[in-house]
Amino acid sequence: MSSQFKDLANLYKKNLLQDVIPFWEKYSLDLEHGGYFTCLNREGKVYDTDKFIWLQNRQLWMFSLLYNQVETRENWLKISQLGADFLGKNARDAEGNWYFSLNREGKPLVQPYNIFSDCFAAMAFSEYALALRLAEGETTSGSGSESAKKIALQAYKNVLRRQENPKGQYNKAYPGTRNLKTLAVPMILANLSLEIDWLLKSDHSKAEVLSEDIDSIIDSTIQEIMGEFLDRDTGLVYENVTPEGEHLDCFAGRLINPGHTIEAMWFIMDIAQIRLKTDKETEKQGDREQQNTDNSPIVSEFSKADEDLINLAVDVILNTLEFGWDKQYDGIYYFLDIKGHPPEQLEWNQKLWWVHLETLVALLMGYRLTGREECWQWYQKVHDYTWKHFADPEYGEWWGYCDRRGEVLLNLKGGKWKGCFHLPRALYLCWQQLEMLSSKEKAVS
Amino acid sequence: MSSQFKDLANLYKKNLLQDVIPFWEKYSLDLEHGGYFTCLNREGKVYDTDKFIWLQNRQLWMFSLLYNQVETRENWLKISQLGADFLGKNARDAEGNWYFSLNREGKPLVQPYNIFSDCFAAMAFSEYALALRLAEGETTSGSGSESAKKIALQAYKNVLRRQENPKGQYNKAYPGTRNLKTLAVPMILANLSLEIDWLLKSDHSKAEVLSEDIDSIIDSTIQEIMGEFLDRDTGLVYENVTPEGEHLDCFAGRLINPGHTIEAMWFIMDIAQIRLKTDKETEKQGDREQQNTDNSPIVSEFSKADEDLINLAVDVILNTLEFGWDKQYDGIYYFLDIKGHPPEQLEWNQKLWWVHLETLVALLMGYRLTGREECWQWYQKVHDYTWKHFADPEYGEWWGYCDRRGEVLLNLKGGKWKGCFHLPRALYLCWQQLEMLSSKEKAVS
Repeated sequence: MSSQFKDLANLYKKNLLQDVIPFWEKYSLDLEHGGYFTCLNREGKVYDTDKFIWLQNRQLWMFSLLYNQVETRENWLKISQLGADFLGKNARDAEGNWYFSLNREGKPLVQPYNIFSDCFAAMAFSEYALALRLAEGETTSGSGSESAKKIALQAYKNVLRRQENPKGQYNKAYPGTRNLKTLAVPMILANLSLEIDWLLKSDHSKAEVLSEDIDSIIDSTIQEIMGEFLDRDTGLVYENVTPEGEHLDCFAGRLINPGHTIEAMWFIMDIAQIRLKTDKETEKQGDREQQNTDNSPIVSEFSKADEDLINLAVDVILNTLEFGWDKQYDGIYYFLDIKGHPPEQLEWNQKLWWVHLETLVALLMGYRLTGREECWQWYQKVHDYTWKHFADPEYGEWWGYCDRRGEVLLNLKGGKWKGCFHLPRALYLCWQQLEMLSSKEKAVS
Repeated sequence: MSSQFKDLANLYKKNLLQDVIPFWEKYSLDLEHGGYFTCLNREGKVYDTDKFIWLQNRQLWMFSLLYNQVETRENWLKISQLGADFLGKNARDAEGNWYFSLNREGKPLVQPYNIFSDCFAAMAFSEYALALRLAEGETTSGSGSESAKKIALQAYKNVLRRQENPKGQYNKAYPGTRNLKTLAVPMILANLSLEIDWLLKSDHSKAEVLSEDIDSIIDSTIQEIMGEFLDRDTGLVYENVTPEGEHLDCFAGRLINPGHTIEAMWFIMDIAQIRLKTDKETEKQGDREQQNTDNSPIVSEFSKADEDLINLAVDVILNTLEFGWDKQYDGIYYFLDIKGHPPEQLEWNQKLWWVHLETLVALLMGYRLTGREECWQWYQKVHDYTWKHFADPEYGEWWGYCDRRGEVLLNLKGGKWKGCFHLPRALYLCWQQLEMLSSKEKAVS
């Protein structure tokens, strides 16, 4: 098994570093105006030059992460800087809210009609600040890093300020008749808080930004997802619920978004495993202290609550796959109605790259943390489907959109919603999970 | 040929009166709260009770039209009233703008974020006013009819007032960088103006509503569509252009919506043929007067400009079919990119009922008015495809959404966007066109 893990780890690593990242390095850089092209066809040719802020920030995040976690390649830092400079200069309105899109030259096209541009900005500039700190020297954080931190914190502040009404004046819901909140908000908050934890935990920043502790923000988002969005009867996560956590019988209320659910579950497992590691270290320290005084047995290494949380997340992933898997043509549906009614989304039965890739991350993480055999079985099935239908070894990078039968629907490697993010992040995370599985096995054998 | 026209006329008529309308009569009436259910599954079972104002108004329009044009059935008037009362009571905000949707009981759910609810309200209440006038007695228009007229005029006034910025505060475009206007606005204005012409031409109403003559509104919308949205090089109509009529190279700027184009073309032919009829009558009158004085030959029966307009509309329809027809699986695509790039709409290659039905209306109208053989050939091809894939003789009514291969995508006869409108209107109009073709042939033979 260990060599299988190792082989798979190498497959993901090789695809990331020798196929996907080179594609973006080669085709996506706008050396004239700054920022990145994301609308790339199969061959990497730019077919549209608009700059979508989600994707600009996500690519900045990705290249900064590679620099921070994989290798301090000068070129990855330069590519990060190309995006960061363009974004820092053009992407915010007078109040500091992040636009949805700009034209190639950086002029605003679409207003800041939601908080997700700000979320990805906070993630991106936080990771970029780490990259600059690394480049500038660990000990004395330079002015570039400080300025990136400031941008990240301001964006995070926007998100917290606007989280109760993320769409502001663009919210079309008539107040009071039927209030719904969406999974996307606590989900992104959970992931984001973890991402910028390092930044928030510096006392200076914390005082400036937060009225409550970062750990309580994380706790309450997990509570919201697992206590309100998750339906304990079906074991499925609803995409929209009332502010009180009620599940309503209407189009939005019946919506299940399997990819979103599964991605949220690995965010939650990720938080839980970090807390477990901390617990473990604290306990070990406790043990050491204890061993000094008596010979009582070592206490449990894991906190029960976080173990339960991980197991619950795995349950939800498995339930969602059972519910969301296309038994006729394979693959995971994009949208479903919990009652089996027709969803309002015409694209409901399509197969999307990110849904399948986030599922691979979730299954490997679930398997590594729990050892549950169903995770490994599902992982193999989803792995086979995903690599067969989305990877494009002939031209590099992956297809994004397939129809129900798994046939390519759009001749693109990037567009308005697909950029340099879900695919390379998932390849990186799968590679990491598989490396850990491989070392664990080695350690055991 | 005449008997073929007659047989086809009977097919459409029979489907309308013995299949489609009975389906809505049987399943769509909310006798408890008023208005109509539109979310009906294959068997007619209600799967969602929200009331979408476009569809509520369109069903009101349809039943009023049946009462006015087909037969003064008491039940059709009652069904109209069920919708009109519900809408009149619940569907407008304090400023008289029409909401997008209400819950079953009539409480507002989604704000008036566009002018299309108002457009369909004007159409619906205008037709309903005619129905009430017919019911109340042609000579003395009763108070019901007057009140419906008032609602129609107020809605029309909203449309004219808001046409330059149809989305108001919900418009997400940043002002100035890239202004685009959409075909939907002049298209709906052309059709709407014709629909409520009778109402506007009463002097009283005209003075109240219009700063310019209704005929100049119609002229300028036709000029806008044929002069700005239509690209003379490709012979195709763009869905979005700048206010100056420029065609831009961006997602929205490259978009072709074949169904919309073709529907707009029959609206324009409809206007042109009415003007031709008027010309013809005027000329005949002129002839009679002329015959009294000399024996010069009869002058051309048709106005050249409107003849040219009809021919141009037919050209555009044929170009659009050439461009928008799926050569592999048949049927007309939902969305295309003029340059062949991937469209942003994931549903781009689906086959929708309304696209095909509006095309049948357009082709029959084009054939009747020009006699061009290509219209008849395309008509037969589209007729075969449409009846084969969308009609559902087993359960009644028609499917709305098929995938690229023509397989049913959603188990519904009605939903958030499909109601009692495109299908029955097209069946009615095809029946009428075919009747006229049949009489014309008889007159000739």
